[in-house]
Amino acid sequence: MQNADTGKVPDIDGYTHMEGGVCAAEGFTAGGCNCGLNKDPGKNDLGMIYSERPCVTAAVYTTNKVKGAPIIVTKRNLEKTGGMAQAVIVNSKNANTCNADGEQKAERMCELAAAALQLKPEEVVVASTGVIGQILPIEPIETHVEKLAKSLSREGNLQAVNAIMTTDTVKKEAAVTFEIDGVTCHLGGMAKGSGMIYPNMATTLNFITTDAAISQPLLQKALDEIVKVTYNCLSIDGDTSTNDMVCVMANGLAGNPVIDAEDGAYACIRQALYLVMRELTIMLAKDGEGATRLVTCTVTGAPNQDTAVAVAKSVIRSPLVKCMIFGRDANWGRVLCAIGYAEADFDINKMDVDVESAAGKIAVCRGNAAILPFSEDEAEKLLKEDEITVSVSLNQGEAEGTAWGCDLTYDYVKINGDYRS
Amino acid sequence: MQNADTGKVPDIDGYTHMEGGVCAAEGFTAGGCNCGLNKDPGKNDLGMIYSERPCVTAAVYTTNKVKGAPIIVTKRNLEKTGGMAQAVIVNSKNANTCNADGEQKAERMCELAAAALQLKPEEVVVASTGVIGQILPIEPIETHVEKLAKSLSREGNLQAVNAIMTTDTVKKEAAVTFEIDGVTCHLGGMAKGSGMIYPNMATTLNFITTDAAISQPLLQKALDEIVKVTYNCLSIDGDTSTNDMVCVMANGLAGNPVIDAEDGAYACIRQALYLVMRELTIMLAKDGEGATRLVTCTVTGAPNQDTAVAVAKSVIRSPLVKCMIFGRDANWGRVLCAIGYAEADFDINKMDVDVESAAGKIAVCRGNAAILPFSEDEAEKLLKEDEITVSVSLNQGEAEGTAWGCDLTYDYVKINGDYRS
Repeated sequence: MQNADTGKVPDIDGYTHMEGGVCAAEGFTAGGCNCGLNKDPGKNDLGMIYSERPCVTAAVYTTNKVKGAPIIVTKRNLEKTGGMAQAVIVNSKNANTCNADGEQKAERMCELAAAALQLKPEEVVVASTGVIGQILPIEPIETHVEKLAKSLSREGNLQAVNAIMTTDTVKKEAAVTFEIDGVTCHLGGMAKGSGMIYPNMATTLNFITTDAAISQPLLQKALDEIVKVTYNCLSIDGDTSTNDMVCVMANGLAGNPVIDAEDGAYACIRQALYLVMRELTIMLAKDGEGATRLVTCTVTGAPNQDTAVAVAKSVIRSPLVKCMIFGRDANWGRVLCAIGYAEADFDINKMDVDVESAAGKIAVCRGNAAILPFSEDEAEKLLKEDEITVSVSLNQGEAEGTAWGCDLTYDYVKINGDYRS
Repeated sequence: MQNADTGKVPDIDGYTHMEGGVCAAEGFTAGGCNCGLNKDPGKNDLGMIYSERPCVTAAVYTTNKVKGAPIIVTKRNLEKTGGMAQAVIVNSKNANTCNADGEQKAERMCELAAAALQLKPEEVVVASTGVIGQILPIEPIETHVEKLAKSLSREGNLQAVNAIMTTDTVKKEAAVTFEIDGVTCHLGGMAKGSGMIYPNMATTLNFITTDAAISQPLLQKALDEIVKVTYNCLSIDGDTSTNDMVCVMANGLAGNPVIDAEDGAYACIRQALYLVMRELTIMLAKDGEGATRLVTCTVTGAPNQDTAVAVAKSVIRSPLVKCMIFGRDANWGRVLCAIGYAEADFDINKMDVDVESAAGKIAVCRGNAAILPFSEDEAEKLLKEDEITVSVSLNQGEAEGTAWGCDLTYDYVKINGDYRS
């Protein structure tokens, strides 16, 4: 169970948490500044990550048909280089999406970063986040890139993570150190996102760096697998952004033999990726726009993983379940209703459902019949906690899945009724 | 375009609106009372509809795997009778769902109504709406059915519609008169529903009566077709209820030759059904929980109807679009984002998007590029209206679709944070 205050998952054997975010791994520097896209000079809006060595790079992108121009340009760049990159440039406040000159501007950002870092433009990953359908002013970026490049440091992760925040209220960083065949490696990352979050292939912006050495196809494979059980199991509001991207860069500086088979070494880095991405996922859920509570739904006993995940996501997506948790109203029927409309094929008549928190556990349903009566006092105490877990046992198989979300509050409506200003 | 105040669609050639709801058709009586399920004695919680002649009956039900016991019992009854019924009994305040004794109680309701009306239990359609997972107290129903049956009248539609309301703030009734082969017919209905509305095969509770004569297979066919373009294109919150049902009863008292082929007479009753069900759909959207605005999305130029409907539903379902309309914030990019994640296959680069209301029309997008700049003054004026339409032209075919929804407001959260009390 993650820590109640930070969402951090405790250390497990062989993996130790550390500070540093995208600078935790050897050879990576980062930075951020306010270039003027954001009128608040205290808030960064332009960020950069740099590796002293070229990186094997894997990425997953939004499945939205409307794609931000930076998504298109990054995809093209990684195709050109065969999955190699050495730097990231990213801005907030403007998504550079649905603009006639979007790709031109995204390419310009790569050129500017490349010139400042002595790279080729296609060695740069570009990303943007913010309002959709507004022309991206390029001058603020042009006039700040060089200075930003000079400011990059091993402690710059805090400046970089600040630069990607939009409606986020807390920074999201995670990193672990671990060993591969006796060689110490590091893997860390940062994420942003608070609303417009219903990933389907990726979520929001996520940058992960590691000094482990791994082949590009295996890095991509590990990312694809882990995205499926972390970011893709997260929903704040069911809206899939146009600019979602997860990008993992591996520069190999740790010195382990390059991982090029699905062996024990591959399992090690895959586990590190899982820990960091799961931690970032939980941080994103906790910081959902207007959220006051983390809602986790775990499903066990499913005939297969897809069914488990579909049921878990259906529960955490339900606006009525989300309102119930905000209002601390033990209206359990809504949980059963949301399980019932999950897009999956299973027998509804065998399921057991419990709702739990640090304050206790209440049996809600056994075999499709609600458990009555339950203690309203206990329910009230239970729902007062900051983290609520819905546990569903389908009792028809061995597969499991977990999804993360948050409650639906007045503040979500307030934030999104007046986002642009 | 429907009337701004009532959601009523104006008369079209040959179809004239009338009062009377479920009693508009000849031979139908109705009534309602407070039996004590609802602690407010001024609010009905038990309703009944009766036809002096057996009715050809068609129904569609929720697709939720968790089905209310009344759904199971009604389905079984109509199978037993080959699609014939003569009465409806319905309660609000308790959904009789996820209860171990649910079917037994629902069958008891049929027995009680049948005894009071001199029918067989299987000739009764039973429905319940309200909180899921609480035992339905049967005594209040037992002690009130007989008196209710005696009170049925040709003016009882108002008592009946009151009995099915839950969080509804207005009653939803519609009826038309029309001719089939020179014979005057009537078709009218009532609906309830305000939250937990994302139909997929039906929505909430809807009862429609007609005195036209039609075969059961054709009545079912007409209902299936019309549900697809009316109730199934409605979303308040994306939650699919466990108790949704639409039931149409035709007693043939108008005296037209029984419609048993897809001829002109079939087209006449199908059109009447469409008009009444569309009107009820719009009324449901306007009265969504906490809603302050009706949001309509029309999609034209689609390669097929399924794509048109998928795009329209994606727009009206988006929490961010719904918040934007509540907040009167011209954040058009969210509309484009929601079109982009519609679950359908189409080319995103040809689309034109406009937002319009009684106050004007703003071009938002042409061919995947946002139209900039737009007048913020005009946008503000436009978004102040009570009814907002998003018009999408995909420009890649001839098919069309429309979906209806509402804004997402503080009051939705408030209502659903404290529903049970």
